Amino acid sequence: MAEFDELIDRITRNVMRRLREEDLEGKISLPIASVNHIISAGADRIGAILGAKTDEEEIARTIDHTYLKPDATVEKITQLCEEAKKYNFATVCVNPNYVALCSQLLKDTPVKVTCVVGFPLGATTSTAKAMETRDAIANGADEIDMVMNIGALKSKNYDLVKKDIQAVVNAANGRTVKVILETALLTQEEKIKACQITKEAGADFVKTSTGFGPSGATVADVALMRRIVGPIMGVKAAGGIRTLEDVQALLKAGATRIGASASVAIIKGTPAEAGY
Amino acid sequence: MAEFDELIDRITRNVMRRLREEDLEGKISLPIASVNHIISAGADRIGAILGAKTDEEEIARTIDHTYLKPDATVEKITQLCEEAKKYNFATVCVNPNYVALCSQLLKDTPVKVTCVVGFPLGATTSTAKAMETRDAIANGADEIDMVMNIGALKSKNYDLVKKDIQAVVNAANGRTVKVILETALLTQEEKIKACQITKEAGADFVKTSTGFGPSGATVADVALMRRIVGPIMGVKAAGGIRTLEDVQALLKAGATRIGASASVAIIKGTPAEAGY
Repeated sequence: MAEFDELIDRITRNVMRRLREEDLEGKISLPIASVNHIISAGADRIGAILGAKTDEEEIARTIDHTYLKPDATVEKITQLCEEAKKYNFATVCVNPNYVALCSQLLKDTPVKVTCVVGFPLGATTSTAKAMETRDAIANGADEIDMVMNIGALKSKNYDLVKKDIQAVVNAANGRTVKVILETALLTQEEKIKACQITKEAGADFVKTSTGFGPSGATVADVALMRRIVGPIMGVKAAGGIRTLEDVQALLKAGATRIGASASVAIIKGTPAEAGY
Repeated sequence: MAEFDELIDRITRNVMRRLREEDLEGKISLPIASVNHIISAGADRIGAILGAKTDEEEIARTIDHTYLKPDATVEKITQLCEEAKKYNFATVCVNPNYVALCSQLLKDTPVKVTCVVGFPLGATTSTAKAMETRDAIANGADEIDMVMNIGALKSKNYDLVKKDIQAVVNAANGRTVKVILETALLTQEEKIKACQITKEAGADFVKTSTGFGPSGATVADVALMRRIVGPIMGVKAAGGIRTLEDVQALLKAGATRIGASASVAIIKGTPAEAGY
């Protein structure tokens, strides 16, 4: 089926984009909640289901295998890519300085490269976030995980929050954009507002956490985010995810992508060390 | 004396730049260690001494009054600028998203604006750091506190570490550039190497910490950094600095600038809350 991966991916993206547009325009009330987990997971999971893979393989395809520590060496990132190839994770998620290396190491594999932008504080300018996005794509990034301008949200400067996301969505030029809310810093009201703005701004995913905040993904936050963004957008749970049980609970709550550094331990069912 | 501030500043910068060049060329063996604290502190401290100010006023002029939390509101940053004006701190040190606001609020005051770049992980590309620097300057930044590419240092890719700093120094176009080493993540050998590279790359300061790492400035690290970079470069101590005694010990060890969020408490001699 590998030769159809690109085609399936493109068709799925088009369908999802159109569905999102119609959803925003209020044209659809979506009786498709029952296929929520299939559709919102996008091509990767559809591919996995078509291929009748095992649970572990299917779960691996929802994982962004992540290493974001500032002292990450070339050796460590090379190991991350090797693991991602071996277990067929959806992407590796790395800092901008390692995107070119990962893109090279993962060439001709199904594993994509996610680059974080404005990370982990979200406190760079929209200009800088857009430039960083273009630079990441030039280096081979397939997906962008940006951090929302949290200070602007807290200051109720919603227009700035939205334009900040739009700047990255535009710069990403059709590539998947996930927006990190850093839920641990937000009130319930702010979480809802952040989800609404992210959806309006045309991003593909809301994402819970950076892994550098006071705490990470919770089932309650994921369920809330899924409820606010509706069944079509992606929801990525990240931060503090250590076990297969964590992953299953978050997927059940509505997550369609998981960010974890403990991915290998999760898939193998062995205990994981702490990390981002 | 206020009308001479700009002139003193420019002359001092020129002298310091020339001294640094001669130092790098090995032309001077510097019998000037005794005036180390005056010269390496630059114009601010020379101005302070010429003006025969009090100890508190002199110490205030060494402080970058800092607020870098991701959820900083407009209100909080406005307060930071008000405090900086009141106590005449050297600069306010903020994330890129608040540089324009600070620059506007501090117009026609002696307080300058420091912007962090590649912060706090140092793991963006040199291209992104240079672009972020230019963007910050366009928004009114006077000084740039960049984070070194720590992963490249750990990978012994020293050429990349140096070029990364040079990219920011070039983009800063004569403005003060401080390079954050994040000493808590480095071995003794790596701290020394980082200081040497920073000096060779033409930056103005080495700086200990982001405030987001495992720990902050220590007297031992500051003394080591001063020993390695020589008497002319600036050394900024930042991270976990809470009291006047902390500041005095760090200045005595060779620091010429202090980064603190507890600046008001430090100057007033009152207890400070934890923060960046």
